[in-house]
Amino acid sequence: MPSEIPQPSFVLVRPQMGENIGAAARAMWNFGLDRMRIVDPRDGWPNQRAVALASGAGRLLDEAGVHDTVAEALDDCTFVFATTARGRGMTKPVYSPEAAMELARQKIAAGEKVAVMFGPERSGLENEDVARANAIITVPVNPEFFSLNLAQCVLLTAYEFRRQSVEIEGERVEMAGSDWASTIEVEKLAEHYEERLDQAGFFFPPEKAEGMKVNLRNLWSRMRLTRSDTQMLHGVMRQMVRWKERGGQD
Amino acid sequence: MPSEIPQPSFVLVRPQMGENIGAAARAMWNFGLDRMRIVDPRDGWPNQRAVALASGAGRLLDEAGVHDTVAEALDDCTFVFATTARGRGMTKPVYSPEAAMELARQKIAAGEKVAVMFGPERSGLENEDVARANAIITVPVNPEFFSLNLAQCVLLTAYEFRRQSVEIEGERVEMAGSDWASTIEVEKLAEHYEERLDQAGFFFPPEKAEGMKVNLRNLWSRMRLTRSDTQMLHGVMRQMVRWKERGGQD
Repeated sequence: MPSEIPQPSFVLVRPQMGENIGAAARAMWNFGLDRMRIVDPRDGWPNQRAVALASGAGRLLDEAGVHDTVAEALDDCTFVFATTARGRGMTKPVYSPEAAMELARQKIAAGEKVAVMFGPERSGLENEDVARANAIITVPVNPEFFSLNLAQCVLLTAYEFRRQSVEIEGERVEMAGSDWASTIEVEKLAEHYEERLDQAGFFFPPEKAEGMKVNLRNLWSRMRLTRSDTQMLHGVMRQMVRWKERGGQD
Repeated sequence: MPSEIPQPSFVLVRPQMGENIGAAARAMWNFGLDRMRIVDPRDGWPNQRAVALASGAGRLLDEAGVHDTVAEALDDCTFVFATTARGRGMTKPVYSPEAAMELARQKIAAGEKVAVMFGPERSGLENEDVARANAIITVPVNPEFFSLNLAQCVLLTAYEFRRQSVEIEGERVEMAGSDWASTIEVEKLAEHYEERLDQAGFFFPPEKAEGMKVNLRNLWSRMRLTRSDTQMLHGVMRQMVRWKERGGQD
């Protein structure tokens, strides 16, 4: 059974190569979409090349509705997008994938059934297919160069739907078994280094010492150290001191 | 020569198949990025399979810097992202492609040189490579399924950079040789239909006539007609009247 996640259906219109149908299924499932419809696939159905290429997303092919005509595939949909790379001489709104998937999300939330049509590999959708759509999606590519294939178009559209639907953390920090160092821990580290570097004659000449200490403290705080970083840096300094002391005796 | 457009460099680290290097070049150039660096490609360099697959984006391969080590490839960069699908047990910020490319845009605008590393097809980047990066990019895929290939990772990252850098119209309407109808033109159309439909006895029973007229007027305005749409609809009604009149005579 398809997932219960509210989502648009992706309609592959007269796809040619089974490989591309399989790759489109994978592209959809990467972003959690699993409602595929297929219109009149060139090489019939089921298609073993599609199954081979879909690998982990084979379920989408098993559950895909296969239809003879575009009209039949869109039967129950209330809002339909057509993806095209170029203008079609029809008066119709044209959306970026971003704006289109924002609109799709709103319409789906309001209970509408939304579909996105993708055309055959070589030629794209026929004007007759585009005329059935309420709106067009055009990926804003480099005007000098367009070479998106079917699976890549599907990928970008699915990515945009998920990007806007799922609460995604823009930034998080992966913590590897250690908390951030507290201010007092950074302070102790700074003191440790200042004391030893003072003994070592690092802060020279004296009139520059204050500025050098500020720079060093700034370095520690800018680094955003973890507790284990501070421990390691304490260890570094202790070891240098030990080495120096040993050196005097050797 | 690479374009002058401010952009991150994309660094392919130890890529295996030439096909994927070519496909990555195409993916970049779709979104106007043309600064590729390649580290220690498995099958040497130049690579004929890469050239064949790059087709219109072959210039990127000709101009790509090829380096023996990651360190050498990142030499002049001031901020480096590593793309990885999974956590690496390192304390490091992790960004979505969206947040990462926003940060990249800001840093580039401030004069920094930004690079994004992509790992070999099978294994991804080594921990040693990731440790050289200032931050990680992880594409927020379906947690149940990850099957992005090298060119698809490059595609999504390049797409995000362009999406945020270029002023893209979210929605525009492609006008096919006709302006929008003015209110007066829609009004005249509504009057024409009302008058003729009144003659035809359409607004029946009389107590519902007013509501039916409002619905019809609402339909015309909701459709957002072009001038040529109104002309066509006038023609439709005139033709129905002509047919009716002829019918009476035939």
